[in-house]
Amino acid sequence: MNYPLIVYILGRVLQVEGTFMLLPFLVGLCYKESEAFSFLAVGLVEFLIGFFVCKKKPESAGFYAKEGFVTVSLCWIILSIIGSLPFVINCDISDFLNAVFETVSGFSTTGASILEDVEAMSHCSLLWRSFTHWIGGMGVLVFVLSILPLAGAQNIYLMKAESPGPSVGKLVPKVKSTASNLYKIYCVMTLLQLLFLLFGGLDLFSALNISFSTAGTGGFGILNSSCGEYSSYIQIVITLFMILFGINFSVYYLMLTKKWRQALNCEEMHWYLGIMLTAAVLIMANLLCTGQFSGILETLKNVAFTVAAIMTSTGFATIDFETWPMFSQTILVMLMFVGACAGSTGGGLKVSRIVLYLKSVKKMIGQYLHPRSIKIVKFEGKQVEHDVIRGVNMFLITYAFIFAASMLLISLDGFSFTTNFTAVATTLNNIGPGLDAVGPTHNFSGFSGFSKIVLIFDMLAGRLEIFPILLLFAPSTYKK
Amino acid sequence: MNYPLIVYILGRVLQVEGTFMLLPFLVGLCYKESEAFSFLAVGLVEFLIGFFVCKKKPESAGFYAKEGFVTVSLCWIILSIIGSLPFVINCDISDFLNAVFETVSGFSTTGASILEDVEAMSHCSLLWRSFTHWIGGMGVLVFVLSILPLAGAQNIYLMKAESPGPSVGKLVPKVKSTASNLYKIYCVMTLLQLLFLLFGGLDLFSALNISFSTAGTGGFGILNSSCGEYSSYIQIVITLFMILFGINFSVYYLMLTKKWRQALNCEEMHWYLGIMLTAAVLIMANLLCTGQFSGILETLKNVAFTVAAIMTSTGFATIDFETWPMFSQTILVMLMFVGACAGSTGGGLKVSRIVLYLKSVKKMIGQYLHPRSIKIVKFEGKQVEHDVIRGVNMFLITYAFIFAASMLLISLDGFSFTTNFTAVATTLNNIGPGLDAVGPTHNFSGFSGFSKIVLIFDMLAGRLEIFPILLLFAPSTYKK
Repeated sequence: MNYPLIVYILGRVLQVEGTFMLLPFLVGLCYKESEAFSFLAVGLVEFLIGFFVCKKKPESAGFYAKEGFVTVSLCWIILSIIGSLPFVINCDISDFLNAVFETVSGFSTTGASILEDVEAMSHCSLLWRSFTHWIGGMGVLVFVLSILPLAGAQNIYLMKAESPGPSVGKLVPKVKSTASNLYKIYCVMTLLQLLFLLFGGLDLFSALNISFSTAGTGGFGILNSSCGEYSSYIQIVITLFMILFGINFSVYYLMLTKKWRQALNCEEMHWYLGIMLTAAVLIMANLLCTGQFSGILETLKNVAFTVAAIMTSTGFATIDFETWPMFSQTILVMLMFVGACAGSTGGGLKVSRIVLYLKSVKKMIGQYLHPRSIKIVKFEGKQVEHDVIRGVNMFLITYAFIFAASMLLISLDGFSFTTNFTAVATTLNNIGPGLDAVGPTHNFSGFSGFSKIVLIFDMLAGRLEIFPILLLFAPSTYKK
Repeated sequence: MNYPLIVYILGRVLQVEGTFMLLPFLVGLCYKESEAFSFLAVGLVEFLIGFFVCKKKPESAGFYAKEGFVTVSLCWIILSIIGSLPFVINCDISDFLNAVFETVSGFSTTGASILEDVEAMSHCSLLWRSFTHWIGGMGVLVFVLSILPLAGAQNIYLMKAESPGPSVGKLVPKVKSTASNLYKIYCVMTLLQLLFLLFGGLDLFSALNISFSTAGTGGFGILNSSCGEYSSYIQIVITLFMILFGINFSVYYLMLTKKWRQALNCEEMHWYLGIMLTAAVLIMANLLCTGQFSGILETLKNVAFTVAAIMTSTGFATIDFETWPMFSQTILVMLMFVGACAGSTGGGLKVSRIVLYLKSVKKMIGQYLHPRSIKIVKFEGKQVEHDVIRGVNMFLITYAFIFAASMLLISLDGFSFTTNFTAVATTLNNIGPGLDAVGPTHNFSGFSGFSKIVLIFDMLAGRLEIFPILLLFAPSTYKK
């Protein structure tokens, strides 16, 4: 294990997070909040630690998949712990474990909260919460890769470990350029949403928070009602941007490079929009049949918002979907597992995996019928390699084991089966709300400390796609 | 598609079922029940149809996996429909769909019932219910293979399609001998249980029913309280035999041929007993901690019974486990998915699949850590071939899709999330009871006709391990 290089990269990450804390500090200053200084203090100390750690660049360049996984996992854990300190210091979330839960939920873009009353928080803390979504959405190491002069094999391993989806879509041959292109697109899109929200009459603070939260497909709101109180225009803007941030970012890159045809032919995007549309139509029909219909436009708006919020794993809410019939609720729970596109900021199993599963099943049936014929699985117009298929299969199996184990562990708290199932589903898929005691009008504060630790693990495992975080705890990782 | 041979085999199966109906008829005669004649009538007509269909043995022997799957699926559907007719004719279950549900639940060894009051049934109908478990447990085609002079390739394809587990363990090179050996072991063990039950003072009728039901790991009881009213001795005998019938039958064959060492070294059996023991210990501890402990022996007896009943997919009950804490209930739900050993009469995913999943995950992690090393998965002391691994992986994925689709479809009835989840889990894994509205003290009568059809599909898909029944409905199966 190349510890010097791991420590060096972690130092860089500390510097970045320390710098990022200037934003909540400045916002706090504008609102004349004393809470703001907690961000300055933590940020400064963090930056200095990072600075000293990185004084000398290590020479050895032996850095492989193993190191990549460990670095990314450690980085996310350290970021979350330090990121939670301002909350504890300024007493917005005085309990340390709760603060860590909230911060992990932020960085992992889950949006599950332990806060009973969001509106009681200071502005600087609220902004930091939303900002963690934005940082975590694209990945802090991707950010580090895009700005720092690291070169060599470590780049691809870090990128692989942090990027969501079954395979890393490098936009351009160089990892550094890919990372910086991704962040450019990310920034422009966030800015666009901000402008659209400001145009709708929203104040800058709210608009900034919502934009960060949407961009990272996170879901932290700044009102207790999530997005229920905003105007229809604002809700529609959020809906559209949630959908946009759930699309594979390579589509936008292709558009920027004027490869329109290739961009519009993205198979995963077709499936993603198709599944979303089907879900919305089914829920609309269900609501219509059961008479829970308050005018076609109003219903359409709420259904579109909710479907987009759940499928993209954002988790915002305009209404309490627990009042919907069970069929609609079940569709939402399934969308939690499907998730958004690979290479987006969204969570879940990812549309591309689901499509590969469907195609593999179809292939399997074909092989049963014609044992001698040779079938291949094609995706995005290309043959999918065996290794990728095996990788996606193993992902689902590991996912299922972690799901079952988590559900068992948190069931010790005695909540209902539905609560436990959806609590794990919503954290492991980085959504936010579940059903029953973790429904959209509730929060995660009722869980025991032990369960919170389990769910923190799930959020990190979900965001980092399981294996990095699993390897961190495997003893054989550290054997020579 | 070799239709003549498929029809011929189906004809043989009809003859067998027609003959089997003599047993409930004779039992009915003993109790002087007029209902008995429904079995005689249906059985006679069925036998005659089978006789005329089989008058001429078809010559063409082209019979492959495809034909095997279609034959087995069709056979099970036809058996269930005809097997339900006596219930409808003698009015013990007057609704046709309910009767089919009950019969499919019988043959598939699920044991989920739509009956509100089991005790109101005639003796002959009760016996037929239990007998369907026994017939379905080992498989009616395995029975046909063991007695009829069919030869050639069709045997192995039929056996493959009907036998539970990731690979067919042929006891001896010849399929016919394997099948007949399996049935011999099955009969002897059933007889043994019968004797043990009679020794405990149970009347012949009850003992016969319970033995059939346990042997097939079905779970239909003849009392409304399932097994709650029997003496401790009887309950312990049932517990032991449930466990025995959940073990891979090849273990017994090895014992019979005096290969003790090989028999006792069966890896799947070790895992099976290990998981069962762990589950029981955890539940005991949970009940102790939450004070739901009514004396150590009494609790131990109930826990052992329930764990064995759920994990072997029998589904008998001595107590209402819905009164247990959520941790214990969650363990039971997980056991539903694990199931019993491959090559037993039990359901679920099968212990061997779960073990292969675990080992594959371990291998995957090893490959991440040491990308250049070559890792193999070993099971039962042998290297597991890639094809088997791929098969088990695809099984889980297809299983997950069917699970999700079923849950969505039955959610239209408006039952709770827990009810829908466990209703699908308990039918697809051939267990019997679930939680909430399908808990051990409830039944499946509340579901709509549509949901019952979905659950019937699940029970058949679970028993036949998905692909045969899926292929039956795939249009490409019938293309040239």
